[in-house]
Amino acid sequence: MDPAIRAIAYARKHRARFVDELAELIAFPSVSSDARRAGDLRSCAAWLADHLARLGLTDVNLWPASGHPLVWGRRHVSAGAPTLLVYGHYDVQPEGARAAWQTPPFRGTVRGSNLYGRGASDDKGQAFAHIKALESYLATGELPINVSVLLDGEEEIGSPGLVRALMRGDFPIRADAIVISDTRIPAPDRPALTYSLRGNLQLELEISGPARDLHSGYFGGSAPNPLEYLGGLIARLHAPDGRVALDGFYDRVRGIPSQERAYMAARGPSDAAIVRAQGSPPAHRNRDYSLYERTTALPSLTVTRITTEGNAGRATIPSRAVAWIDIRLVPEQDAKAIAQSFRDRVAALQPDGLRAAVRPLSATPWVALDRRGPIQAAAAAAYRRGFGSTPVFLRSGGSIGVVAAFQRTLRVPIVLMGFGLPGDGAHGPNEKFHLPNFFRGIETSIWFMRDLRRAGLAGKRA
Amino acid sequence: MDPAIRAIAYARKHRARFVDELAELIAFPSVSSDARRAGDLRSCAAWLADHLARLGLTDVNLWPASGHPLVWGRRHVSAGAPTLLVYGHYDVQPEGARAAWQTPPFRGTVRGSNLYGRGASDDKGQAFAHIKALESYLATGELPINVSVLLDGEEEIGSPGLVRALMRGDFPIRADAIVISDTRIPAPDRPALTYSLRGNLQLELEISGPARDLHSGYFGGSAPNPLEYLGGLIARLHAPDGRVALDGFYDRVRGIPSQERAYMAARGPSDAAIVRAQGSPPAHRNRDYSLYERTTALPSLTVTRITTEGNAGRATIPSRAVAWIDIRLVPEQDAKAIAQSFRDRVAALQPDGLRAAVRPLSATPWVALDRRGPIQAAAAAAYRRGFGSTPVFLRSGGSIGVVAAFQRTLRVPIVLMGFGLPGDGAHGPNEKFHLPNFFRGIETSIWFMRDLRRAGLAGKRA
Repeated sequence: MDPAIRAIAYARKHRARFVDELAELIAFPSVSSDARRAGDLRSCAAWLADHLARLGLTDVNLWPASGHPLVWGRRHVSAGAPTLLVYGHYDVQPEGARAAWQTPPFRGTVRGSNLYGRGASDDKGQAFAHIKALESYLATGELPINVSVLLDGEEEIGSPGLVRALMRGDFPIRADAIVISDTRIPAPDRPALTYSLRGNLQLELEISGPARDLHSGYFGGSAPNPLEYLGGLIARLHAPDGRVALDGFYDRVRGIPSQERAYMAARGPSDAAIVRAQGSPPAHRNRDYSLYERTTALPSLTVTRITTEGNAGRATIPSRAVAWIDIRLVPEQDAKAIAQSFRDRVAALQPDGLRAAVRPLSATPWVALDRRGPIQAAAAAAYRRGFGSTPVFLRSGGSIGVVAAFQRTLRVPIVLMGFGLPGDGAHGPNEKFHLPNFFRGIETSIWFMRDLRRAGLAGKRA
Repeated sequence: MDPAIRAIAYARKHRARFVDELAELIAFPSVSSDARRAGDLRSCAAWLADHLARLGLTDVNLWPASGHPLVWGRRHVSAGAPTLLVYGHYDVQPEGARAAWQTPPFRGTVRGSNLYGRGASDDKGQAFAHIKALESYLATGELPINVSVLLDGEEEIGSPGLVRALMRGDFPIRADAIVISDTRIPAPDRPALTYSLRGNLQLELEISGPARDLHSGYFGGSAPNPLEYLGGLIARLHAPDGRVALDGFYDRVRGIPSQERAYMAARGPSDAAIVRAQGSPPAHRNRDYSLYERTTALPSLTVTRITTEGNAGRATIPSRAVAWIDIRLVPEQDAKAIAQSFRDRVAALQPDGLRAAVRPLSATPWVALDRRGPIQAAAAAAYRRGFGSTPVFLRSGGSIGVVAAFQRTLRVPIVLMGFGLPGDGAHGPNEKFHLPNFFRGIETSIWFMRDLRRAGLAGKRA
C-alpha cells in the first residue's frame, strides 16, 4: 500500500486529537512584539520542541538566535531523497481589545466548523498541518523524503534573528525545497499557490514638543500640540487620489505584464469579493487598477496606530505623539530608498517648536517566485488530491520576512501553499481557522511529500 | 486674643501632621474619568466625610447625586454671621504613564519643599488648605462665620451631578459667598485672584469604516483607514495662523477692553514666563495677542488623545479611530453653537466609505467675575496677611465646571483664591504642591474667614 494512503487514513482517524493539540498551541499568548510576553514565547517554543521530539524528529533544538527562539527539528530518511524544509511561525499578532473577541483570544475554541483563537490561521494552524502530516507518516510507515521543520518566533516582527543568521551564512539547515503555509486561498475548496509577496517597511514616527504633558486649559492656544501636527503630517502622506505622496515612491514600481493582468482578472478575487472581505467600500476610486492589483501589485502606506503614551486625560496636551507606519513594497522598490524618502518628507514638513524622529522598526523585501518548475507542479498535484481542485496562482499583499532571505541564501525553490481564508481575520479579532481546510491541508502536505520524491529533485542537499 | 491669631498659632504647630494627612488624601486614585476607579472615589469621599466629622462639622453626608459622590459638611455658628461656601474637588485627572513619574502618583511624597502626587495641587491640596483653616478655628476657639464645605467628585469631568442639582433647584446649600481654590498664582509669593475662566466643551469624534480590524498587507491599498482620515480631519481644524477653523467660531468672541489689556500686560505673565512653563516655543506666531491673552481671553481647540481601541498591532488597519477634542470658550461663545459648528464641519468633510460620529463628553460655561465688591476686598486683605503681598487679578485659561452654575443659581459673589503654581504640573506627571503655599493658603483662609465677618455681609443666607 502507498505510504501516503496509510498516512491519510491515520490523519483522518486522529482529527479530533489534532484539533485539541492545535487549541493547546493557540493557548500560548506568543505575541512577539510584546516584550512582556517573551516568557510565553519561550514556553510555546518548548512545547513545540517537545511535540516534534515526541513525533520522532531528531536534532530538535531551540535555535540560539537573539530574541525569540526558533524551533528546529528534522527527520533524515535517505541520502538519495530530497530534503524539504517546512517553515512556519508560532508567534502571533497582539490580540487587541478583548471585548471585540467572542471567545478568549488565547483559548482555542471550536464553533461550527472553525477553530477560533489568535494564531489559529496565522500561522499556528497552517504550520501545524505540515507537522500533523509528518506525524501521520512517522506513525504509519516510512517518510518518503527528508524533512526539516523550522518554526519562527519572530515572523510578525520581520524575522530579524533568522534573516541575520541566513545572511551571515551560519544557518545549519540545507534543503532542496521549502514549503511555507502562511498565505490565503480564495475559498475553502479553491486552493492557491502564492507567487508574489509584497515587502514590508515599518517605521515609527515620533513628534515631540512641550517638555511635559500640559493642562489644555492653561496652555491651549499657546503650546504646540504634537498630536495635531502628527495628524496633519499623516494626512499629507497620501494624495487625494490615494497615491502615496513620497518623492520617488513609484519610480521603481514594475508594471504588471498584460498576460498576467488577464490571468489576475480571470482567476483572482473580484473587487466585490475584496469589498466583502474588508467590510467597507474601497478607500478611493482608481479606474486603472482592480482592488486585487491595488493590494498585491501596487505599494501601499498605512498608519496602523497613533499613541500619546503619556497622560490619557481629556484635558491634556500631550508632550509627544507616536505613529506606526506600515509600508508595503512591490518589485523593484527599495526599502532603504523609501525610508529615506519618508525621512526627507518628515524633515521638510517639520515646524517650529516641534521635533520629529523617524525610527525603523522592521524591513522585509518583496518576493517574486517562479511559477513553473517541478516543485510548483508537485504542489499543484498535491492540492488536486487534497482539495479536489486545481490551484490558482495568486499574488499576496502580505509579507513573509524570511522568504527573500531564503531565496538569496539557500537558492532553492519555494512553495507558498496557503490553507487560510480571506475571512479568517488574521491580525484582527475573532481570528479562526476553517477546520475542513486544516484537514485538507494535512492531506495536501502528505501528498506533497510523496510527490516531491517523484519530482526528480536529486537529494543534493540532504 | 483675636481668634485668628490663635488659629494661626495652631496651624503652624500642626504643619507636619497636615502634610501627612494631605499625603493620605493623595493616596486615593480618585480618577473620575475612569469607571474602574468608582470604588476609589467612594473610598476617598468616605475618608473626607469622616475627616470633616472629626473636625467638628455637622450634617456631614455624601450627596446622593448620580455618579461620584459630593461630600458636604457645615458648621453653623450664628444666624447673624455670613455663610461661606468652600468648594473644592477630590477627583483627579488620570496619572498617565507611570514611567514619567519620579515617585508613584498615588503616594504623596515630600521632596524638597514640595509634596508630589496626582491631585497634590489640583485640587486636593488647595481644597485641604481651607479644611485645615477650619480645623484651626474649631480646635482653638470660635469660628467667626458659618462655613459649608462642598467637595466634588466630578470636577474633572465637568461636575455633571452638581450642575444638574443646582439647575434643578434641589440644592440644599445656602451661602453669602463662595471661595474656590483651584487656580494658580504667578509665583510662590505673588498671590492672585482669578476673575475669569474659559468655558470647556469636550467632544469625542469617532471615525469608523472597515467591519473589523484588517491585515495591512492583505488590505493595504484597498481598505479606507479611519485613523488616517481622522488625522486629516484634525489637521483641518486649525488654519495655518493657528485660528480655529470652524464656521462662526470667533463670531461672539468679546474683545478685551484696552484698560484691561494694559493691566494684563503690566501684571500678567510675560510670553517668556509662559514659554518657560510649557517648555516649548509658541504653537504659532500671532503679533496681535500675547500668550497670556491667547490662553485666557481667546478660545482654543486641542486634540488631547487619539486611540484605535482595538488591535494595537503594527500591521493592522484599525476599524475605528477616536479623538478627544477639548475646546476652551470665552465670553460670549455658546457651547451649543460651537458643538453644532464642529458637527457641521465633520459632516462636510465626511468621505465615502467611512462614518463619522460626534458625541458630547462635557460642557462647562465660561465665567467672568466682578473684581470689585467687599468679598474680593476681603480676599485681597487676607492674601496680604497670608502671603505678605497684594494679589494681582488674573484671567485663567482653565475651567471650573460649577462656577457658572453657582453664579446663575446661588447668585452670590465668588472668589477664586489660587494657591497653585504654573509649574505644579497639573494634569501632567510629577504634579506637586509647593508646601510653603499650602501653609500660606491655610493662613490666608483663616484671615479670609475673619475678614469676611467684617466685610458687612448680612447673614441673609445662613
